[in-house]
Amino acid sequence: MAATPRTPLTYANSGVNIEAGDRLVDMIAAMMRRTHGPRVIGEHGGFAGMFRLDFNERLFQRNFRDPVLVACTDGVGTKVKLAAELGILDTIGVDCVAMNVNDMIVQGAEPLFFLDYLGLHAQDPDVTARIISGVASGCEQAGCALLGGECAEMPDIYAEGDFDIAGFAVGVVELSRAIDPMRVEPGDVVIGLASSGVHSNGYSLVRRVIREASLDLGVPVGSVDTDSTLGEVLLEPTRIYVSSILHLLAHYTVKRVVSGMAHVTGGGLAGNLARCLPGDVDAHVHLDRWRVPAVFSFLQEAGGIEDAEMRHVFNMGIGYCLVVRPAFADSIVQQLTDLGEEPVIIGDIVAGSGRVIER
Amino acid sequence: MAATPRTPLTYANSGVNIEAGDRLVDMIAAMMRRTHGPRVIGEHGGFAGMFRLDFNERLFQRNFRDPVLVACTDGVGTKVKLAAELGILDTIGVDCVAMNVNDMIVQGAEPLFFLDYLGLHAQDPDVTARIISGVASGCEQAGCALLGGECAEMPDIYAEGDFDIAGFAVGVVELSRAIDPMRVEPGDVVIGLASSGVHSNGYSLVRRVIREASLDLGVPVGSVDTDSTLGEVLLEPTRIYVSSILHLLAHYTVKRVVSGMAHVTGGGLAGNLARCLPGDVDAHVHLDRWRVPAVFSFLQEAGGIEDAEMRHVFNMGIGYCLVVRPAFADSIVQQLTDLGEEPVIIGDIVAGSGRVIER
Repeated sequence: MAATPRTPLTYANSGVNIEAGDRLVDMIAAMMRRTHGPRVIGEHGGFAGMFRLDFNERLFQRNFRDPVLVACTDGVGTKVKLAAELGILDTIGVDCVAMNVNDMIVQGAEPLFFLDYLGLHAQDPDVTARIISGVASGCEQAGCALLGGECAEMPDIYAEGDFDIAGFAVGVVELSRAIDPMRVEPGDVVIGLASSGVHSNGYSLVRRVIREASLDLGVPVGSVDTDSTLGEVLLEPTRIYVSSILHLLAHYTVKRVVSGMAHVTGGGLAGNLARCLPGDVDAHVHLDRWRVPAVFSFLQEAGGIEDAEMRHVFNMGIGYCLVVRPAFADSIVQQLTDLGEEPVIIGDIVAGSGRVIER
Repeated sequence: MAATPRTPLTYANSGVNIEAGDRLVDMIAAMMRRTHGPRVIGEHGGFAGMFRLDFNERLFQRNFRDPVLVACTDGVGTKVKLAAELGILDTIGVDCVAMNVNDMIVQGAEPLFFLDYLGLHAQDPDVTARIISGVASGCEQAGCALLGGECAEMPDIYAEGDFDIAGFAVGVVELSRAIDPMRVEPGDVVIGLASSGVHSNGYSLVRRVIREASLDLGVPVGSVDTDSTLGEVLLEPTRIYVSSILHLLAHYTVKRVVSGMAHVTGGGLAGNLARCLPGDVDAHVHLDRWRVPAVFSFLQEAGGIEDAEMRHVFNMGIGYCLVVRPAFADSIVQQLTDLGEEPVIIGDIVAGSGRVIER
């Protein structure tokens, strides 16, 4: 992993032949620039990426009084393995961005920038470029800058063709506008937003089902999607909710109508919604309020998986939840619809002990 | 990777039995708290970590006029493999922090917080706790908060006992105080700081030497260190230069006496020093100015490695470089010595074309 001097990226730490490596660095630099606004400071040095906060700036409309930085890290689990096996590499980076920025907006924060770490067996510039192109697309969707990344060749850790990808996102929220889930109270309404599919968790189970039921990933499953192969359906990238949620929050500049939010990942709807409940309320979620997408029913049947296990592992069609004041619920549903989401009122908050009760 | 609700950490995403998992979460939470100052905002929500910038605050002495966020990501290469094989797990996290924060201070930035991503075969709470304890120690040394992390169990990607760790650091620098290497000019002096050993790159080569020369890692090598085994010497954690460099920079509040810096990693002294040179100067480095530590001579002899290859892969005893104005060089050497470093004037800057010439 030799560093190539005078390049803007730590991606320079590759190990390929110099020409291919240079081409890769150029390609990645172009992808990164697509995500850069005026707050990214140029490419000098290159030991670390630089991002300007918007203080004392005429360039930016908005300043913060009490900025709080919000940061998180996540990977995409064994969805990487499925992507590698199918050679569908240009969307796994979208998943990696999504898993992080969807966590971040739960706090009400606006994603500012993103970095990724890619560990792989051996550098193949074409493969790496396809993976990073997905990361850049995800960053564009989330409105954040791809500020840097590292590509580590580790043949003794990663088998041939295998890789792992981890993402890191940093955002900012005005302290007084940070979502404080302690404000969730009885009477609040739970709104669920449709997921785009399996998203990025539960893939160890997905892959077990594929193996045990000998599923053919190369053909469509009629009950699920007649136009896409099963592999393509399973690799559908995770929906990024950033734009819709930030637009919604920006609409209420004075009233704090959103009391809590949750990104539905491992642990399912109940496991994650519980993370935004104070100890003195319960959430009642009505499972008949939305239709479980066909891909989940198909996996459940093919794998003979119990209902409770399905709900514990998968999002079952709801990728993100908002808990809102009841008087604003209908208006929020309308706004989210206009923003391109598919919102459903799936439950409500009652006095309780911090549990989510699904029925 | 089920999420445990109501925990402050994404480490909750583990897969172990519930009791062991809860104990792990508690242990990691305690380690993280050790690194938290008053700028870290409490443990509500847990989807992402929150860090307060010091604006509009009486708590903090210093405010920024034009804060620039600086971020980077890096892993420790195949040093993880050596650590796993020897079962020496409590310092690899220090390496992970070091690789990132040493990159960050090159821009003159103060590390604020850190997150880590740990991918492994299967969750063993004891192993994970030891790895993260090193991350927390590194954060304490670097004066930054361990704000979050992710632990991903991926048995199909990582072989039994194997793991990979990636780190992510965010810092801040006042724009006018950011190190701009374009200021490096003829006459400037290059100061090298001693490394603590091999640091965290070149381990694929180290491990090849171990294999090919059938070295016994469990015993001391007389010429290298009579008190530590060879394995212990090779796993000596990477020196963290943050405190010394920030103290030095803080000493010069008006004069900008440091014109460039470089963290010596893959690519060696020449490869990395070149990254802080403008295109119209060269750096002349005099290889006789410092003694190459015995561990490098030992590896070179055991592996029959050529001088140029050694210098391209390893730090050869110099882990960090500063380029400074000549009138201040002696004073800076003295200060760095007082701060606990071992600085040596190793070269100077002349008119040229962006190259580093070692002789």
